[in-house]
Order: sequence, then structure tokens, then C-alpha cells
Amino acid sequence: MKESSDTIAAMATAPGEGAIAIVRVSGPGSLAIADRVFRGSGPLPSRRAGGTFLHGHVVVNGQVADEVILLVYRAPASYTREDSVEIQGHGGAAAARRILGAVLDAGARPAGPGEFTQRAFLNGRIDLLQAEAVLDLIRARSDRAAEAALEQLSGSLSRTFDTIYDRLMAVAADIETTLDFAEEELPPEVLRDAGVRLKAVESDLTMVLQTWGEGHKLREGVLIVIGGRPNVGKSTLLNGLLGIERAIVHGTPGTTRDFIEEQMVIDGYPVRIIDTAGLRETECEVEGEGIRRAREYVRKADILIYMLDASQEMNEEDWGWLRGKPGDKTLVVINKSDLRNSDSIRSYMTTCPSILCSLVIGKGLDEIRRGISQKLDSGSFPYPNAVISERHRRIVVLSRKDIMEALLLLDHTPSEVTLAASHLRSALEMLGEVTGRVYHEELLQSIFSRFCIGK
Amino acid sequence: MKESSDTIAAMATAPGEGAIAIVRVSGPGSLAIADRVFRGSGPLPSRRAGGTFLHGHVVVNGQVADEVILLVYRAPASYTREDSVEIQGHGGAAAARRILGAVLDAGARPAGPGEFTQRAFLNGRIDLLQAEAVLDLIRARSDRAAEAALEQLSGSLSRTFDTIYDRLMAVAADIETTLDFAEEELPPEVLRDAGVRLKAVESDLTMVLQTWGEGHKLREGVLIVIGGRPNVGKSTLLNGLLGIERAIVHGTPGTTRDFIEEQMVIDGYPVRIIDTAGLRETECEVEGEGIRRAREYVRKADILIYMLDASQEMNEEDWGWLRGKPGDKTLVVINKSDLRNSDSIRSYMTTCPSILCSLVIGKGLDEIRRGISQKLDSGSFPYPNAVISERHRRIVVLSRKDIMEALLLLDHTPSEVTLAASHLRSALEMLGEVTGRVYHEELLQSIFSRFCIGK
Repeated sequence: MKESSDTIAAMATAPGEGAIAIVRVSGPGSLAIADRVFRGSGPLPSRRAGGTFLHGHVVVNGQVADEVILLVYRAPASYTREDSVEIQGHGGAAAARRILGAVLDAGARPAGPGEFTQRAFLNGRIDLLQAEAVLDLIRARSDRAAEAALEQLSGSLSRTFDTIYDRLMAVAADIETTLDFAEEELPPEVLRDAGVRLKAVESDLTMVLQTWGEGHKLREGVLIVIGGRPNVGKSTLLNGLLGIERAIVHGTPGTTRDFIEEQMVIDGYPVRIIDTAGLRETECEVEGEGIRRAREYVRKADILIYMLDASQEMNEEDWGWLRGKPGDKTLVVINKSDLRNSDSIRSYMTTCPSILCSLVIGKGLDEIRRGISQKLDSGSFPYPNAVISERHRRIVVLSRKDIMEALLLLDHTPSEVTLAASHLRSALEMLGEVTGRVYHEELLQSIFSRFCIGK
Repeated sequence: MKESSDTIAAMATAPGEGAIAIVRVSGPGSLAIADRVFRGSGPLPSRRAGGTFLHGHVVVNGQVADEVILLVYRAPASYTREDSVEIQGHGGAAAARRILGAVLDAGARPAGPGEFTQRAFLNGRIDLLQAEAVLDLIRARSDRAAEAALEQLSGSLSRTFDTIYDRLMAVAADIETTLDFAEEELPPEVLRDAGVRLKAVESDLTMVLQTWGEGHKLREGVLIVIGGRPNVGKSTLLNGLLGIERAIVHGTPGTTRDFIEEQMVIDGYPVRIIDTAGLRETECEVEGEGIRRAREYVRKADILIYMLDASQEMNEEDWGWLRGKPGDKTLVVINKSDLRNSDSIRSYMTTCPSILCSLVIGKGLDEIRRGISQKLDSGSFPYPNAVISERHRRIVVLSRKDIMEALLLLDHTPSEVTLAASHLRSALEMLGEVTGRVYHEELLQSIFSRFCIGK
């Protein structure tokens, strides 16, 4: 446990109009600072037990700054494991600013982003995965995302990584010991056994990697893009999905010149849904820019809803997007199916899965919703469960690579086994950064700078 | 004390990204609800002493909804004087929504706007003036406004009104007693004495009325409008006052077509400062609309900064605004004073107070700031102090009118004195609504509906 010598303070509630605002103070000086700013009946805050709260006023130079509730936390029973104080005042900017001002004047210094959580990590109350879960929870845009964050906060992902780390560490130690004691000939049974155990670790890492897709969907949200040629009914579909008239629907091709983005939650996943400009060749510069961006979005989409007009023949644009496209990303929707179907549409339908609809009369919307749900559903993914983030994925990919290189070197000469051992050390070093067994200033900086101040 | 039979719950922190979110529960069922949703070590919340807090989880159907701190308040030691519970969870929308959902499922009902504070009022912890001060404090946009709200919250304005009410009540009672016992002739010394006491009450109400201006400035903010003909330098002045480049400054007359509004704090007062379209006759419809709105703002301004161009002759527009204007509202600023001064400007300067400046080189800005400060300063106003609002002003004006009518009737026939007594009853009825001695559903509705939910 690394002792913090100073005491930090920050506003801990969101800015804006609310009933209550909280100023949070943590560090060895918390209770002395509370004694200085707080006036209430009975003993001073520093003489109170942890787990109690008092009613009184924050007073500055004899002037009441606010009427408050003050919570006394005593180390280690606090968020940071340090002595802490929480001062609840009236909501709104003015009162909270006055309380914070009083606390800073009394000897605290302003906290940096995530500094309370960083102290909780440095003091061993949570590991880095749990610290990141705190941020995920605050940012969660759907219940499913919140549940995954809570699962990670509870330590389930930490246990997975700890187990992997410990097993890898044991293999690495055995190999190092063998290298230390066997001079010329390495005992093949030891190396064989190490190989088997390494393969098991490698396969566990592969399984962990598979949670990234789900994590990505929950953290960054799922990008659904509605693409297709002009006037096939893309904006009508967006409106149908939203249940409100958001996009300007108009019969003239090219009405949606830029893209329209909406956020919603489907099946517990936060979703960004984008209605793009109709895809076609154009001379118009403004429309052309919209189409260029539309193509970019169609490419980036997690789920592409590609719309066709049943009455129109499919053209090169359509074939370009639908030919050889990964089926698990694209949902083909054939609109205006109540009109006479063109030859190419009829032949497309017989060979490829697609959803028929007629959006102007509201037909087919439910099928499209079901289609989206199917693509969102990760199937075998156990829910709720903790899922890795991009940072973890990068580490897992690199350490898995090191383990595989070690595996290739293992049944060779002592110098090659020495190299294998160094690969394992490198993998351990990296894996340690997932939970924070291994950390350095830059790593903490990159994680905690994304937090809000006060957390 | 009116007993609430149900238990209410609401989010009590501002929405948005923050470290901590609070769900507040109040009413007789609070602790039973806490027992249902909270899981921690040791005794249940309902077995804990008031003034203590616990660490644990809110659990719904065996699933953790969030890791929380739970505060136990026992009646009457709470904001509402009822049993209450506060649940602090992780900030952000998802976690708080889950906690609130759990609490509502466990038997609470969603609170209406200001319902917690309304219960504090109904249960006699605060009066209506203090309840209104809570809202003023949350809304306060400057320290000075916050201090006035705190003063009112502390009860100083309540004491003023209580004293006035009690004195008026005593006079009214004496008059009624006299009417009850004296059949034909009313004793003149009683009426004379009543008249003297009524005049004293009336003069106290007049003094209270004088705090309205200050209250208005602190609650609604001071409206400063920069007016003048096109191209005299209005936007340059706004930028100078803000210290940043906010308005688009351009040498072509008529650049600011609509108005630009900024908020700032000057000398502790929240200020709205508006840069208007240049005032002139125009054929252009768009500009014309801007000018129409500009004239409206110039009229509404609490402080009008009227700008002149030293090098231009003053015209009818200028004279229209400056002739016969109340000197305490308008600050005349003569810009470009380094250029050759026109005849009319020179003669204006010799007869009327004005500030010379040359804003392009930054000359005169400090003088203008000082001029604003002087106009903002209420002079004799004791600071900090509680100040009445528009609602109180209306009541005071009407009850003062009743008292003055009673005064006119007092030394006349018994039937006229009877009428005087009824005026005093009416005045008392109204004055009682200031602190809430007298209240009705509509009054509470009009006050508490302005609150946020959760307060």
C-alpha cells in the first residue's frame, strides 16, 4: 500500500441542476479539514466513528457556505481506503462551488481525473480491471452494458486473468528452474509437460479474446448503418425503427444529403443507427461528399441494413455492396415489395436471404427488427458476464503471440528454450498490466485520465 | 404535522456523467424498502441507528444492481422529518436508474417535483420562505445570489414576516374586540392607538418591498443591453467585457442581425448581457426584424449601455433613446473618441454625463466596467441579506393596500371600522401565504412545481 501524503478534493456529482451535490475529500488530512470547515452540534468530525454522518453547516470566515450532511469514512473502510469525508450540500453550481472552495482553502488540493479511483487501486482495494469497470459503469448506455460492468467490478474478469497469469507463471518458473539446473541436456518430459500446459493457457486466452466483440458492442455501442441507392426508403426505415418522425422523408432522390444519426437501445445493446445519403454516382459536389461519407459508414458498420427497391432492377452499386459480403454483417431489406418485382430482384430473392417489406404501409418492420436482434445476439455468449476491452484485447493478442512463439521453441536446444523462457517473461509482463500486478506511471495515466474528476 | 402515508423516491443528483448518483427515499416505508433492496454485512438497514451509513449492494432478483452506500435517517432527523434512506451508487444514467427501479419495485412511488421539500414544509421543518430559498440556492448563478438564498434559508426573512404578521394580528384583534364590546360609540383612543400601530406595520412592509429590486437582480439576473446605431462598436464592447472574441466584429454596418446574449457575473450579480442589432431605419426585412427586437431589449434593459460614435452627428434615433431617459438606467458611452468629435457630440458631452472611450485600442473599458458596477450597486442595501421575490412582492403590495384602506376607515362609524377590520383580515390572510401559515393546494402546487424532481 502506497501512502498518499496529500489530501484531494473534488465535486463528485454531475454538474447541473440537481437536489444534492457532493464534494468528496480523501487523504490523511480529510478529518482535520472537515473539523476546520464544518460546524454542527456535538463532537467534531474527527471525533466521530467511521460510518456515521452529521448534519450541520460549512462555514467560511463566520459565513455559512451551505447547510450540509457530512459523512465520515475511516481508513481502510472507504472508497480509497484512506480517511475520507463526503460533504453533501444543496444542488446547483453555487453551493457546491462554495463548499469545494472552503475545503481547498482548508488544505486539500484539487483532485485530478480518476484520482480517487487511482488511490483505490494503489491502496489495493481494487485492481485495474475493476477500476476500468467503474468507468464503464458510469458510461454505460444500456442495462446490459451496466450489468457487464458490474460483473467486471465484482472481480470475475480479474479472477479469469489471475488464474491465467498464475498458471503461466508456474510453467515459466518450471522452465527457468530446468534451465538453471540442467546444464547440457534438458529433460524432455519437463518440456513436454510445459508444452501441454502452455497450450492450455493459450486456449484460455483465445476464449477470453472471444469476449471482445461483446465488450466492444456494450462499450462503444453497435453501429447500424442503413445503406442503399437513393429513394429506396432508408429514412422511412429509420423513422419506423425510432417510432418517431426524425429524418425528413421526401420522394425526391437525394433528400438525405448528410447522414442522420440516432442513438437507441435494442435488446439491451446501446446502438448508433445511421441513415446515409443514397448511394449513386452524382455530379453535385455537396451530394457527392455525402455519398463519400455514406460509403465510409457502410464499410464501418457493425450491422449493415442494405435496402433495395423491389420495383427497380439491381445495379452495379447494389451488386458492389452485396456480392461477396460477409453474411453475418449485412441484412438485405427489399422495400416496396407490394409493387411489381423487377427481374433481378426476383432472382436475388430466390438465391439470397432477404426481408420483404413495404414500409409506407408499415409492413415488414417487425421482421427487420427481428433480423437486427438476431445479428445483435452473440448466441453462445453467457449473459451477464464480464467482457474485455480494446486495451485488454491488445495485451491478450500480444501475449498469446509470445506464448505461441515459446511453444515453437520449447523442444529444441537449451539456447532456444532460454529464448522461449524470455518470451514467457514478456507475456507475463504484459498480462500483468491487465489487472495491474505490473504497472507504470504511463499505464495509470492512460487509464485514469479518461475518468471524470471526482471519481 | 401531517402524516404522509406513502413513500416517495427519486434521483437526487443532476443527470449526466458524475462520480456518484443518489437515489433518495422518504416516507414511513423507507427502511422496509431498504431492507428489501439492500444486501450488506451485519444487521438490516431497519435495525441501524439514524445517522449511520452502510456499504453493500442493491440486489434485484439475485442480481447486483449496483455497489452502494446507504444512509439511514430516522424521523424526525431528516430533510423531510420522515424516515428516509439515501442510496449512493455509481454515477451515470444506467446504475442510478437500476437503483431507482429496485426501490420503486420494492414499494416506493416516484416523487413529484419538489415533493421532498414539500414534505419538509408540511411536517413543519421549514416554512414556505425557506422552501423557496432551497430552490433559489439550487438555481443561484452567483455567490451573492447563493448568499441571499442561504440567508433566507436560515429564516431571517421568515422572522421579518412573522413579526409583521404578529403585530398586524394584534392590532386586528384589538379592533375586533372593540367592535364586539362597544355597541354605539367606539373608544377613540383605541382607534388612534390602532392607527399608529397600523402605520408602523405599513412602513415595515414598505421597507420589505424595497428589497425586491435586489431580489430580482439576484434571482432573475440583471439584463444589460448594449444599444446604439449600427457600427458604433457595440460588439467590440461586448467582446471587451467578456474578455474573449464572442461576437463577430465587422466594419460593415448591420453585422449583428440578431442579438447575441452572454451570461457573466459582475460584482456578484448574475448578468445577462445582450449585444443588439444596430438601431436604424432599414428596408431589409431580416435586419428590420433584428432591429425591432433590439428596440424591445433596449426598453426592457435593467441597464442600458447606449453607444454613440464620437465622429458622427447624433440623429433622431439617438435623441429618441437619450432624451428624457431615467438617468439611473442608461450609461452613455461615446466610442471612437480619439477621432474628431462631431458638433452634437461635443455639445452633448458638456451637458450630460457620459464615458469617453476608444474600444479598438482598449481605451475606456475600465471606466465602462466601473460605470456598470455603480449602476449594479444598490448602495444602502445590506449585504448579504434575504430579499423578497416577485411572489412576495405581489402579496406585500396587496396587503399594504388593504392596511392603507383600513387606516382611512379607522376613525369613522362602527360600520366603517367593521369594514376596516375585514380589510385587515384580508391582509393577514394574504401575508400568511408568504411563510405558509396559511396555505392551500394551489399555492403549494405553484411553488413546488418549479422544483426539480428529487428535491
